[in-house]
Amino acid sequence: MTALSAAAAQALDALDPLAPIRELFELPDDVIFMDANSVGPMPKAARGKAKGLLDDWVNLRRRGWSQRQWLEMPSLLGDCIAPLIGAGPGEVVMCDSTTLNQFKAVSHALTLRPERRTLLTQNGNFPTDVHVLQGIAAASEGRLSLRFVDSEDEAVAAMDAEVAVAALSHVDYRSGGRWDMGRVTAAAHAKGVLTVWDVSHSAGAVPVDVRGADADFAVGCGYKYLCAGPGGPAFIYVKRGLGDEVWPALAGWMGHADVYAFARDYAPHGGVKKFLTGTPLVGADELASAMLDVWPKVDPAKLWAKHKSLTDFLIAALKQECGSLGVVVNSPGDHGRRGGNVSFSSPGAGSVVEALIDAGVVSSFRQPDAIRFGVSPLVIRHADCWEAVARLKRVLAETIWRQPKYAKVSV
Amino acid sequence: MTALSAAAAQALDALDPLAPIRELFELPDDVIFMDANSVGPMPKAARGKAKGLLDDWVNLRRRGWSQRQWLEMPSLLGDCIAPLIGAGPGEVVMCDSTTLNQFKAVSHALTLRPERRTLLTQNGNFPTDVHVLQGIAAASEGRLSLRFVDSEDEAVAAMDAEVAVAALSHVDYRSGGRWDMGRVTAAAHAKGVLTVWDVSHSAGAVPVDVRGADADFAVGCGYKYLCAGPGGPAFIYVKRGLGDEVWPALAGWMGHADVYAFARDYAPHGGVKKFLTGTPLVGADELASAMLDVWPKVDPAKLWAKHKSLTDFLIAALKQECGSLGVVVNSPGDHGRRGGNVSFSSPGAGSVVEALIDAGVVSSFRQPDAIRFGVSPLVIRHADCWEAVARLKRVLAETIWRQPKYAKVSV
Repeated sequence: MTALSAAAAQALDALDPLAPIRELFELPDDVIFMDANSVGPMPKAARGKAKGLLDDWVNLRRRGWSQRQWLEMPSLLGDCIAPLIGAGPGEVVMCDSTTLNQFKAVSHALTLRPERRTLLTQNGNFPTDVHVLQGIAAASEGRLSLRFVDSEDEAVAAMDAEVAVAALSHVDYRSGGRWDMGRVTAAAHAKGVLTVWDVSHSAGAVPVDVRGADADFAVGCGYKYLCAGPGGPAFIYVKRGLGDEVWPALAGWMGHADVYAFARDYAPHGGVKKFLTGTPLVGADELASAMLDVWPKVDPAKLWAKHKSLTDFLIAALKQECGSLGVVVNSPGDHGRRGGNVSFSSPGAGSVVEALIDAGVVSSFRQPDAIRFGVSPLVIRHADCWEAVARLKRVLAETIWRQPKYAKVSV
Repeated sequence: MTALSAAAAQALDALDPLAPIRELFELPDDVIFMDANSVGPMPKAARGKAKGLLDDWVNLRRRGWSQRQWLEMPSLLGDCIAPLIGAGPGEVVMCDSTTLNQFKAVSHALTLRPERRTLLTQNGNFPTDVHVLQGIAAASEGRLSLRFVDSEDEAVAAMDAEVAVAALSHVDYRSGGRWDMGRVTAAAHAKGVLTVWDVSHSAGAVPVDVRGADADFAVGCGYKYLCAGPGGPAFIYVKRGLGDEVWPALAGWMGHADVYAFARDYAPHGGVKKFLTGTPLVGADELASAMLDVWPKVDPAKLWAKHKSLTDFLIAALKQECGSLGVVVNSPGDHGRRGGNVSFSSPGAGSVVEALIDAGVVSSFRQPDAIRFGVSPLVIRHADCWEAVARLKRVLAETIWRQPKYAKVSV
C-alpha cells in the first residue's frame, strides 16, 4: 500500500460527490471537530430557524400552534431522517429523548409479549438504555428481570422463549463496534423475541436498515450525526402494523387518534404517532429543523460510502503516523462492523484529548485509555483526517500531553 | 362604584410596582396579547440566549456538556420558578412535557399506594392529563380504574380508601375557575389519598402554594405564564422526602444518583431529581433560560396582587362596556377562585376572536361560546385591559365579527 499523505487525502476529497454539502454548515476555521458522536455540526440554516422562532414567539404567540408547523414538526423531522435508517415516510417521529423513546418501545414490546419475563441487553449498552430496562423490571415487582450479554454471538445464543424483548445498541458507544442487526433480529424472531435497536451511534454515519433487518423498533439520538443541535429531539421507529391495536405506555394528547378534538377519552393514533406524548418542545424542534435544509440533499448510500472512505483512511493514517507512538486502533478493520466513531487507545489518552483541543482537534475520551474520533461525513474531509492525525502525532511525539495543564482527565 | 375609564386605568398603572418588569420583554406595538394561557411573552434576553446556544453549537460542540450548564439547566430553571408555586430550592425541576411529568408523578403515587385501585380526576381536566391516567389504567389490565368528578365538593366527597391518587387541575382551562388546593388536599390526606396538582393555568399568574397546601406532587406547563417559550420545558415538584426510597417509573441517566459515573446499574437520585430522565432538550432549555433574567426580579406577592387588580378591572370593564352587547363573564368574581385567564361568553365568540385579532387583540376561543383572555401580570397593564375591552366593544357594536372573513371558528 502506498504511504498516505496530505496529497493523497486531497486527491480523495477532489472526488467526493458530497463535498458541496459541507458548505451548508457553519464551521470555525482551523478547528477539526471529531466529536459528531456527541454533538454534530450546525447547519447554517439554524440561525434563520432560531430567528424565525423568536419572531414568532414575539409576534404570533398562541397563533403559532395553527400558523406554524409546531405540532407537525415531529413527523416532518421523522420523515426527513427515515431514509437514513431504512424506514419509510410516516414510520418515524422525532420527539422526547432517546431514554423516553426506549421506554416507549420496550413497554410496547412487553405488552405484546405479556407471558415472557426476560429483558435481554448488553453489559456494554449505553447506561441510560439499561436504566430504562431496570426501571421497568423494578416496577414489575419481580416478574421481569434482565439478562446481560457481552457479544453478538452471546446475544444470538441467549434468545429463547423466556425473552420478551432484546433491547440492544447497534453500535457500542465506546469501541465503535457495530452489530449485525439482521442476524440478531432473525435469531430473536426465531424465538418470538421482539427487538428494540438503539441506533444513536450509527444513524447518519453508517448503514442502518431497519426494514431490511426486520427490526421491530428503533430509537436513537438526534443530536449526534443527525445534527439536531445540542440535546435535540430523539426519534422512534416502529414496524408498520406491529401492535397497532395496543395502547402506548405513555398516553398523551399528541398521540391521540384525533389530536384536535380535545376529547376527554384517549384513543391511540395508528402507527408510530401513538408514541408522541405531550406538547412538542418547539424550541428544540425548530433548531433541529435546520436539518430539513441538509438531509434531503444527501443520498444515504453516498453518505455511508464517504464514511467508509474517511474512516478507512483515518485508521490507516493512525497506524502509519502514530503506531510507533503507542496508538492502537480499537475499531474493527471491516467497515461493516464499524459505527460512527473510530476508537483507538493511546498513552495518556485523557491528557492527549485535552492537549489535542489546544491543537485544534476536538474529540473525546473514555476510560481507561480510549480516544474516540466521531466522524461526520457531512463535513469531515480526508484532509481533516490527515491533519487531525498530524496534530495527534505532534502531541504524542513532543509529549505535549505530559504538560501539567493537561493532567486533568476529560470525560 | 365610579365608572371605569382609560384615565382610571392609567391611574392604576401609575401605582404599579411591577411596571418596570414590562421593559424586560420584547413586545410589538399596538398588539395586546391576552393569550398568556397559551404562550406567554418573550423576555428580551431570549435573543442573546439563542445566539449563545448557536455559537456554542458551532464552536464548543461536545465541550458544551462540561463548559456550559446544559445538564444543570433543569435544576436552575426549577429553582427559578419554585417561589411562584410555594416550593423551595431543590424541590422543582423543569424538564420534558406536562404530560410526561404527570405520568411520573401519578406512577410514583401509585407505587406508594400499591393496594389502592382508583385514580380520581375531573371530567373537565385538560385532556392529556386524563389520557395519562387512562394509559396507566389500561396498562394495569383492569386493576386500576378512573373515577371522575365535576366539582370541588364532589372531589372532597369522593376521597376514600380505594383512591390511590387524586390527579387534579388547579384551574379549569376553560372556565378559569380555581380549586382550593389546601381544602382538597386535606380531604385527600384524611383518607390516605396522594395528590398530583396540575398548576399550568395558575403558576406565574395567581397564588400557588404547594407547601402550604401540603400537596404531594405538582406539575405544570412552562410556556404559558412562566414564559419558557413555545413548547418550552414543563416542571415537576415532589414533597420533600415523599417516597425517597422508591424508584421512578421512568428511570434514566439524568435521574441517576451519580450522573457522571456512567454506571451500568441504576440508582435513583434523591428528591425531585430522580424525575429527570434522558438528555435535556438543551435548545428548549436555553430559550427558557431567558426567564432567569426576569423571575428573580419579581416578588410573587406583588405579581399575584397585580393579577388580581388587572382581572378585577378587566371583569368590571367587560360588564360596564360590553354587558349590553351580550357579554357574560364566566370567571369567578372572587379572585381567590380565579385562574390566570378571564373567561366570558359572547355572541359569535369564535368569529369575535378572529375579528379581535385584526383589531390587535390576541385571545382564544373554546367551544361553545367562551372567549378567554389569559392575563400575564408581567406585561399587561390596566390600560391594556381597558383598550382590549374597547376594541371588543367596537367589534360587537359594529358587528364586525359578522363579516364573512371571520366566519371561520378558531380553536
